[in-house]
Amino acid sequence: MDKIYSFASLQNFTLDVFRHIGCPEKEATLATEVLLNADLRGIDSHGIARLSGYVRLWEAKRVNAKPNVRIVHESPSTAVVDGDSGLGLVVAPKAMDIAIEKAKIAGTGWVAVKNSNHFGIAGHHAMMALPHDMIGIAMTNASPLVAPTFSIERLLGTNPIAVAIPANRQPPFIADFATTTAANGKLEILQRKNLNAPIGWIQTKDGKPSTDPNEAKSGGALIPLGSDREHGSHKGYCLGAWVDIFSAVLSGANYGPWVPPFVAFLNPPSDPVGEGIGHFFGAMRVDAFRPADEFKQHMDNWINRFRSAKTIEGQERVLIPGDPEREMSAQRLKEGIPLNHKVVEDLQQLGAKLGVAF
Amino acid sequence: MDKIYSFASLQNFTLDVFRHIGCPEKEATLATEVLLNADLRGIDSHGIARLSGYVRLWEAKRVNAKPNVRIVHESPSTAVVDGDSGLGLVVAPKAMDIAIEKAKIAGTGWVAVKNSNHFGIAGHHAMMALPHDMIGIAMTNASPLVAPTFSIERLLGTNPIAVAIPANRQPPFIADFATTTAANGKLEILQRKNLNAPIGWIQTKDGKPSTDPNEAKSGGALIPLGSDREHGSHKGYCLGAWVDIFSAVLSGANYGPWVPPFVAFLNPPSDPVGEGIGHFFGAMRVDAFRPADEFKQHMDNWINRFRSAKTIEGQERVLIPGDPEREMSAQRLKEGIPLNHKVVEDLQQLGAKLGVAF
Repeated sequence: MDKIYSFASLQNFTLDVFRHIGCPEKEATLATEVLLNADLRGIDSHGIARLSGYVRLWEAKRVNAKPNVRIVHESPSTAVVDGDSGLGLVVAPKAMDIAIEKAKIAGTGWVAVKNSNHFGIAGHHAMMALPHDMIGIAMTNASPLVAPTFSIERLLGTNPIAVAIPANRQPPFIADFATTTAANGKLEILQRKNLNAPIGWIQTKDGKPSTDPNEAKSGGALIPLGSDREHGSHKGYCLGAWVDIFSAVLSGANYGPWVPPFVAFLNPPSDPVGEGIGHFFGAMRVDAFRPADEFKQHMDNWINRFRSAKTIEGQERVLIPGDPEREMSAQRLKEGIPLNHKVVEDLQQLGAKLGVAF
Repeated sequence: MDKIYSFASLQNFTLDVFRHIGCPEKEATLATEVLLNADLRGIDSHGIARLSGYVRLWEAKRVNAKPNVRIVHESPSTAVVDGDSGLGLVVAPKAMDIAIEKAKIAGTGWVAVKNSNHFGIAGHHAMMALPHDMIGIAMTNASPLVAPTFSIERLLGTNPIAVAIPANRQPPFIADFATTTAANGKLEILQRKNLNAPIGWIQTKDGKPSTDPNEAKSGGALIPLGSDREHGSHKGYCLGAWVDIFSAVLSGANYGPWVPPFVAFLNPPSDPVGEGIGHFFGAMRVDAFRPADEFKQHMDNWINRFRSAKTIEGQERVLIPGDPEREMSAQRLKEGIPLNHKVVEDLQQLGAKLGVAF
């Protein structure tokens, strides 16, 4: 069913598409790097599979290919950035750069972003801090698909959080996950394969447990991490709420049910409470706390101890966050990236429409 | 079974106990305020029920009643604080004060603490930011009771996170929770009542699902938020890991399985990797991002929208984090605080031992 493409071929096509919609050369390159990092790391739902969606947002004049990304408010360790309706793929790394620059001087940097669009995978932006011996944090709100505990209304996005922490000889600790039981991308996979979801991932429009991965299309909702009240779904709801408030109430973006949808065929709410969608980034200089070498040696010790933990019978190892994605990335760079036939068709149509060879 | 005590009577007793072990007057008052805020807010496991445990740590010379709490490393927006083996109930609010002072100048303040002890409820410290129109964050690591996904070894504490966010006319958003499916205090309640736990809270020493709330006493473990891999326990493991790394690897405290136990009858590990247990605090000045009034009005709007969400049949309302604890606090201030008879006996013995009337 899947066809394998080399990373370079997907890179060339994506770059051509971003050039075609009018992105300046440097920003087309940046957007391509961010988008395809998702495919490399195995987060197929957030990579090239979304390229035609970004183009449709541009066609609907909801994405500005030449944004003036700028600081509109700041303090020594903070800034609010107006993304000027740019691609989140471009706005986010620019905002993370600002957080890193702030951290160089103030010890930490924290940047809230308004007026942006979907930014790819959160982990990419958090990882930007690593070469600077900084801890990186990235989060974003997203269109409402998730019902808080006890609610039948969808008021939150899958609102991911990523944290990247440098180590010394060990690869870095990189956690990146939706604050729901399962990311929407996992439901999309079940939809394509006509499989059921486990109980605890989704609910019907009346709030009853469901195993139908298409439930959200008929008024159902995704469920916060924890699955139900007895197993802590109120905690997952809190996590999603923080991401929403930090990303959008701090920045002046739309929050909760007012977040505009990613799909261009749905109109944004007619009563916005802010501008675009919101992100939040943090960079913490390790040596603003203790010498970087000391910290990184202790991170090695932490990682070694957890990775060598005794496992439950039948399980091979205890994973360190970032392990599976790093291994996937190395493999796909070498062996190529598999694309689902529906994604291939979609990209062929996109190429034909824009006159760009796929 | 429970006996009701007025807040004032518990306050007087607790204050006398902290004076008795040698806390200076101001610090005895502070420790009392922090400890009993747990009882007021309904987090019975973290309040006066632990008082005799703190005293036993002092008897074992693991708590220093007259600590020299001091900054040992800093940048404009960060500090590392050495708690000098003080009560966490005293060290934590001092560290949070430093975060708040940093935020006044740098926009945000971030303080990692080493060489401390248990600090009561995380929510108390996060809430200290609210009167300053700041967002407060507090977290701590704790003795290892939790097995990462696929592990049979206990490598993490229940590692709570709290976030307090100010609003305007609405009460603040205050989330405070263990990063496990259920806090250890909930298991203690089941133990006292001889009841079973739901599947997904605990595992046996071999990593099999269990409903026995005493499982941790025979080598079993608590489970990270998410309950199992299919429902996202790896995300709960990531959350607990961040808390551990931010609190202890950044500060120079003990992390993972090296965190010293709260109970005095168990010795700390003989091969420490740092000093004491660790905490992490943050304070973000709202107007370092946007005017505070604007932010707080949008928080009111956020809270109103979520609180008025349509509920699942049979559920009264969608909760805003902090609602139940605020209501409990008002009720208990007025009507008194119920104490389990085992806690009463323990406090009577403590009073008799120290010559302090209970």
